[in-house]
Amino acid sequence: MGNNSQQAEQLQKIIYDTIPLAKASQLRVAELNTNSIRIEAPVPGINSNIHNTAFAGSIYSVCALTAWGLVHNRLLADDIKADVVIESAEINYIKPIKDTIISSCQLDASLFEDFNRRLDEIGKNRMLLKVQVHEQEKLTAEMSANIFVKKKV
Amino acid sequence: MGNNSQQAEQLQKIIYDTIPLAKASQLRVAELNTNSIRIEAPVPGINSNIHNTAFAGSIYSVCALTAWGLVHNRLLADDIKADVVIESAEINYIKPIKDTIISSCQLDASLFEDFNRRLDEIGKNRMLLKVQVHEQEKLTAEMSANIFVKKKV
Repeated sequence: MGNNSQQAEQLQKIIYDTIPLAKASQLRVAELNTNSIRIEAPVPGINSNIHNTAFAGSIYSVCALTAWGLVHNRLLADDIKADVVIESAEINYIKPIKDTIISSCQLDASLFEDFNRRLDEIGKNRMLLKVQVHEQEKLTAEMSANIFVKKKV
Repeated sequence: MGNNSQQAEQLQKIIYDTIPLAKASQLRVAELNTNSIRIEAPVPGINSNIHNTAFAGSIYSVCALTAWGLVHNRLLADDIKADVVIESAEINYIKPIKDTIISSCQLDASLFEDFNRRLDEIGKNRMLLKVQVHEQEKLTAEMSANIFVKKKV
């Protein structure tokens, strides 16, 4: 695994190559390391809605890929071959977003060790991740995502 | 308000004109009347993910616009000028979607009368809507969306 900017570039390439709508939304993996991630997407423009703020579906998609991307990248870094999917999610829109969707998420290092141990034992595991969206340091949206991971055999 | 197919065309035009990412997702308002809606979006293609099934963010966006579009269209039909936004939502992905996201939602006519009375009294109101996604009659995803409506003054 390379340095942080290489990890970010690699994840963005995976997303652009495999999820056309995410590419259309012009999202950018702005920061990525094994325990944290930040993804950004432009507003106004492709992610606008009828009120000229960020479209609820764009905010959700960015948050979903923030959670998915962090786990996908971490498993890659740990050389674990697994499929990562979102089983369910809850999102709260706190304030309208007028300028750039900025989404971030962190992994607790010790929790991830426990997660990995069980993943290794039974071949699958679930994790709840919290993703936050900020605009000028104010929380504008928050997602809780249930992530399901299944090792490839 | 015109007939059902005119309502569907009108809503699709509003969505395409104001939400560029929804247009990019090639969604289609397949059916619309004052109490029910069906929206479809193609898979595989623009809405695919890394597993070559429907991207979680595409499914969510279609569901969100299904709930939003139904309420938006109904208020338009009743000649009520109001802003409609999604405050929060919960989505469960039940099965992977391989061929077309087909999302539907219904309004309970008597509940909507009560909703309108209160909207008229205090200028705003909230509604919980259930959106379902089916593939060959099997439920593949389900969303609960909290919709906030505020009358324009």
